[in-house]
Amino acid sequence: MVLLASKIIKTILIGKGNVGESFINLLYEKNNYLNQKLGIEIKVIAIFEIDGALIDDDGINLKEIIESKENFRELKYWNKGVLAKDKIKELNADILIETTPTNVKTGEPAITHIKEALKSNKDVISSNKAPFYLKYHELEKLAKDNNRLMRFEATVGSAIPCLAMEELLNGNIIEGIYAILNGTSNYILSRMTSEGISFEFALKEAQELGYAEADPTLDIEGYDAAGKLVILANKLMGWNKTIDDVEIQGISKIKNQVVELAKSEDVLVKHLAIAESDKLIVEPRLVKKDSPLAINGTLNVVQIKTRYAGDIILTGRGAGGNEAASAIINDLLYIVSRRFSN
Amino acid sequence: MVLLASKIIKTILIGKGNVGESFINLLYEKNNYLNQKLGIEIKVIAIFEIDGALIDDDGINLKEIIESKENFRELKYWNKGVLAKDKIKELNADILIETTPTNVKTGEPAITHIKEALKSNKDVISSNKAPFYLKYHELEKLAKDNNRLMRFEATVGSAIPCLAMEELLNGNIIEGIYAILNGTSNYILSRMTSEGISFEFALKEAQELGYAEADPTLDIEGYDAAGKLVILANKLMGWNKTIDDVEIQGISKIKNQVVELAKSEDVLVKHLAIAESDKLIVEPRLVKKDSPLAINGTLNVVQIKTRYAGDIILTGRGAGGNEAASAIINDLLYIVSRRFSN
Repeated sequence: MVLLASKIIKTILIGKGNVGESFINLLYEKNNYLNQKLGIEIKVIAIFEIDGALIDDDGINLKEIIESKENFRELKYWNKGVLAKDKIKELNADILIETTPTNVKTGEPAITHIKEALKSNKDVISSNKAPFYLKYHELEKLAKDNNRLMRFEATVGSAIPCLAMEELLNGNIIEGIYAILNGTSNYILSRMTSEGISFEFALKEAQELGYAEADPTLDIEGYDAAGKLVILANKLMGWNKTIDDVEIQGISKIKNQVVELAKSEDVLVKHLAIAESDKLIVEPRLVKKDSPLAINGTLNVVQIKTRYAGDIILTGRGAGGNEAASAIINDLLYIVSRRFSN
Repeated sequence: MVLLASKIIKTILIGKGNVGESFINLLYEKNNYLNQKLGIEIKVIAIFEIDGALIDDDGINLKEIIESKENFRELKYWNKGVLAKDKIKELNADILIETTPTNVKTGEPAITHIKEALKSNKDVISSNKAPFYLKYHELEKLAKDNNRLMRFEATVGSAIPCLAMEELLNGNIIEGIYAILNGTSNYILSRMTSEGISFEFALKEAQELGYAEADPTLDIEGYDAAGKLVILANKLMGWNKTIDDVEIQGISKIKNQVVELAKSEDVLVKHLAIAESDKLIVEPRLVKKDSPLAINGTLNVVQIKTRYAGDIILTGRGAGGNEAASAIINDLLYIVSRRFSN
């Protein structure tokens, strides 16, 4: 294998949950490829968990991390009690990757992590949604004032590059968004439609298959979709909204008789997220069977209404560790191309 | 993007047909907006037609061009007999925009125009397909050797930003492409399906509606889709193919009985363009009714099979002057952001 003279990019990973671990696995698998194709080497110099951190300024041995599985706290470079919020500023890294679980009320500790990074010359990638539906413009301004890049493609539609459409459609004008942004509620509605089963039964099935959480409230009551809708509208249309601006109605009260009746009329009940005419709405609506929004299962779809080119529709998997990790690496390479290409 | 004090970008437009005129109209409509939003002013310093050119080094008055309609040859800055191929090098412009009609055999004069521009320090945007399914790698190499940018989003799926996926999915690996890339043949098959009419009848209807050309051969025999497929595969997967590498089968021999039979089996006949396992194929295939490829009418769809994030599907209008013009302006702003932002 011919190694190229490679540019070293140093990263900090916060969170070693499903997304964080998928990122470590994918990066380990891809580093050779990235080195050969792009002449870069991505190092992870710190991995923070809630109770401490793995730190190695020369780059953590990812293979060792992967093999240690749940026992990573026994590795020699584990620093018990060292927390991200106290350490980010002093670490010498190019990019911070924030993958902690979303706190829907406060957005913390992610918001603090992101601010610390932006204020200490680090670009930011996040799969954590809350900072961007609670404090989008404050963070955007901080990034701009510090001349930093901030990417968060994994927060909406996971691996679907819908947020990147802002830059790609810069020559057009985006006038509205219709989307299905929560795979769990779409799965439940799809099953109610195809099998004629009740909401409760479909939810139980989704939980057994791992598509729905033990507490599914955020998904089925529309809060998760509402957060993603805010991010889409702010990013693609330059709006300045928070999740409090969304009119939200969930799917838990939908009767299967209604779903059946709709089907016989050649329409389907879908849980839509809509940004249009300065309004944000998440609610069940009827869509035609041949509409691009009539997708089944856990897929997500984003229909972008443009002034000059009609609708542009993106569809794909809206969740999953690998999907989020893949979106993070895409964001990472975007930043690398802006920062380090000649 | 960082706002700059109004930066002037000088462009050359080649071709004043449907796409060229749509570009002029859209640019005229958008210049104020671009100026305010991005701090740039796009000037057109030359517009070439087959028999001469409008040239004004200070920027052509677009309003005058639009109002002159078919009488632009009577304007005072019309230079009869001055041809693009002789003039490109000496013009002081940043970007060349190539919108001449596609010559499926030779790719000329577009290939010459593009080469002249790349060799004289101009970035290139093209809505003309042939150069990229005939000489893709030669042109890519020339652009790279001259440190020039070359964008051609309008050539495939018009306003659908499918070629940009190469950069956006850099962190993933694209393993295959399934697509519907010709709106005419998809319209015909959709009408045969929904109305039970014959191929000949549906074609006549498409011609009357302006969806099909008087000579529809390139569309219905799959040549147009094949050219677009080559561009997609070369760009997204780094292949090195030309249109001669595509196994092509058209739709003109499909009987409506076959279409009807398929429908009763819950599948549809679609004219697919497929890039997979080092093979390029355009042929009628059966797809399930709930497949993302089961789109109707003149829409285009591109299904990108990725290793790490499943399928990512883009759908939208595949043709139209405004759609192509919008794609050209997106490309233009991409180039501007790479060249002139800080």
